Amino acid sequence: MNYDRQQLLSEIVQPSQTKIVLLVMDGIGDLPRDGKTPLQAARTPNLDKLATESDLGQTIPVLPGITPGSGPGHLALFGYDPVKYQIGRGILEALGSNVPVGEKDVVARANFATVKDGIIVDRRAGRPTTEESSKVVEKLSRSIKEIDGVQITFYPGKEHRFVVKLTGEGLDDKLTDADPQKEGKPILFAEPLSEQAKKTSQVVNELMKRIGQVLSDETKMNFALIRGFSKYPRLPQFPQVYKMRACAIATYPMYKGIAKLVGMDVVETGSTIQDEVNTLKELWEKYDFFYFHVKKTDSYGEDGDFDSKVHVIEDVDKVLPQIMGLKPDVLVVTGDHSTPAILKSHSWHAVPFMIWSLYTRKGLNKSFDEFECARGSIGTIYAVDAMSLMLAHALRLEKFGA
Amino acid sequence: MNYDRQQLLSEIVQPSQTKIVLLVMDGIGDLPRDGKTPLQAARTPNLDKLATESDLGQTIPVLPGITPGSGPGHLALFGYDPVKYQIGRGILEALGSNVPVGEKDVVARANFATVKDGIIVDRRAGRPTTEESSKVVEKLSRSIKEIDGVQITFYPGKEHRFVVKLTGEGLDDKLTDADPQKEGKPILFAEPLSEQAKKTSQVVNELMKRIGQVLSDETKMNFALIRGFSKYPRLPQFPQVYKMRACAIATYPMYKGIAKLVGMDVVETGSTIQDEVNTLKELWEKYDFFYFHVKKTDSYGEDGDFDSKVHVIEDVDKVLPQIMGLKPDVLVVTGDHSTPAILKSHSWHAVPFMIWSLYTRKGLNKSFDEFECARGSIGTIYAVDAMSLMLAHALRLEKFGA
Repeated sequence: MNYDRQQLLSEIVQPSQTKIVLLVMDGIGDLPRDGKTPLQAARTPNLDKLATESDLGQTIPVLPGITPGSGPGHLALFGYDPVKYQIGRGILEALGSNVPVGEKDVVARANFATVKDGIIVDRRAGRPTTEESSKVVEKLSRSIKEIDGVQITFYPGKEHRFVVKLTGEGLDDKLTDADPQKEGKPILFAEPLSEQAKKTSQVVNELMKRIGQVLSDETKMNFALIRGFSKYPRLPQFPQVYKMRACAIATYPMYKGIAKLVGMDVVETGSTIQDEVNTLKELWEKYDFFYFHVKKTDSYGEDGDFDSKVHVIEDVDKVLPQIMGLKPDVLVVTGDHSTPAILKSHSWHAVPFMIWSLYTRKGLNKSFDEFECARGSIGTIYAVDAMSLMLAHALRLEKFGA
Repeated sequence: MNYDRQQLLSEIVQPSQTKIVLLVMDGIGDLPRDGKTPLQAARTPNLDKLATESDLGQTIPVLPGITPGSGPGHLALFGYDPVKYQIGRGILEALGSNVPVGEKDVVARANFATVKDGIIVDRRAGRPTTEESSKVVEKLSRSIKEIDGVQITFYPGKEHRFVVKLTGEGLDDKLTDADPQKEGKPILFAEPLSEQAKKTSQVVNELMKRIGQVLSDETKMNFALIRGFSKYPRLPQFPQVYKMRACAIATYPMYKGIAKLVGMDVVETGSTIQDEVNTLKELWEKYDFFYFHVKKTDSYGEDGDFDSKVHVIEDVDKVLPQIMGLKPDVLVVTGDHSTPAILKSHSWHAVPFMIWSLYTRKGLNKSFDEFECARGSIGTIYAVDAMSLMLAHALRLEKFGA
């Protein structure tokens, strides 16, 4: 439908005392192995009991058949049209790594790579440790500070990754990746996609040559691939749009970045699910909306490790009573997309969705899995509509029309 | 959602070696007689086995409640927004009958009719044989060649139908049908819907008078009703948009016409389903995408012949192992709309949809019919999204966003 759904919501949302927890098991949707998906194979007494008291359904992250990245997957769950708001990977990585990004800056994601005779032989430079690569990032910082009046800043990242920031006048992010994406291919320079991006592409390409010179004595990390050029996107801010104090409890940079972009408070937490639950408890009085992110379901899906994915689901099941013990008004359990172990990647398959509140049409379902969700009381909806369901169940939406 | 879905797809589609078969049983959706729809009443062991290994769902051809013609029904399945791309029946009939249509031409579909004292008494002129009507078309061709500088060409069609083509400068297709659509009504002339169509309407109306004069000595075929005025519509071309070599295996002009319009190769085939399967086998290496059309399910639906529709379904079931024997990567079995025998016409009811690949959430369904599809793992989707599901299952789509 041709509406701005978020605009419509913002006009009928009202403040309230109710609390909402959005529990995202990243990449939770899967395909059956020997007739059972990980959600079916896992022992999940708490999730299944919750299913008997909830409304179930399945979400389409973007459109049927479209496999979303983590950005679009999450933006949709937060009620942002993922096609209208397309966010570069550079900015997500930068924000998640606490890189300050100004209005005129262009940031990009970079990889150390190994190049031989102009050919990229290893896109990840033998996967250096974070410590090793940080030293090389420092070396770049010392050697390259400015190109054509544009200030260059480097920020270390995990393993082979780092962030490049360009600061100056007249920069634009409409340029192609300086990364052929495949090994065995020659070095690729950035090309402008608009007249305004011409200067930026020249700076980027000069930067690549300079990086090559500075790193010429390195054996493995002797070049850099740069991609995902992005300026700071102006998104409607979650707390204002929905009139809720919102925080993100997440452990990975990418997800912190998305949350920051929409204006949530990104809070400190530990690396385990129990750490995240502890953080939730500590902050319970301070916020109305809690985005609670579990990463490992996706990681194991990407690894093709079906059994470990099952275990993470069971770990989430174990902490569920602690979350329910906080007496949220609304709890949603869902994913941002599917990551079937058999595909070892994100996929297009619909995503299980469960919403608990006092006001559900409970009683149709007996457990929480892909098939029960496909036949749940909510039906198949777009992920971008999840937010209005949460607000509705939290009694935070006024009636539409007289 | 307010996107050009096809545009979005075209940006993330990538070439691949995978093969897709889209098997369209025209008008397959139906309503129950004695508690069973034709799909349920038919003995379909092969379709049912496939259902256990597939994702099932149902499609909405245009919008809920909207009954589509064959044009919109098929365009949607091919991923073309059927409201954005509205195609005149004239052009479909012309293309399917191998009438060459130039950029400035206007074509229309015509019926021989019987008129008495200015009143239409038979809209199909007693359903002449194709041979009988062809002779009368020849007579028209000899007698009427030009009106006001516009060249007139007639092409014979099946039974009472033929095609009229106008060739000249300044022609436009925005005019009303010169056909009251009902018997017992007076002759109706075309009216321009825009200033630009004024000249065309004058030519058409003069043409009708001339046809009446030329045929005045005919007893039945003594007049013509002309409708569906259309110029050649410029549609995005399927092989370019989806990066696939595509062919259409269809036996009726209408469907060949639609396929030609979107740029598929329309290949020669025989008139039976087995003929079509043989063509599929012969061309297997030559194409990536096969649109395979079965007409008779719709024809018998239109005739109200429930039992014959059941038999056609059983015939399709029998050839299914031959199609699967070719080892397609993706097989879709669906329809372009429903044609319930009880209605004897197209209808608005959702259409059964089944997609088979190695990457389905198999196991939820036991058979292929309207009810199983309504409770399948895909849910209810728009037909225009079928194409992205096919491409996804064929691993031909890149991830959307970071």
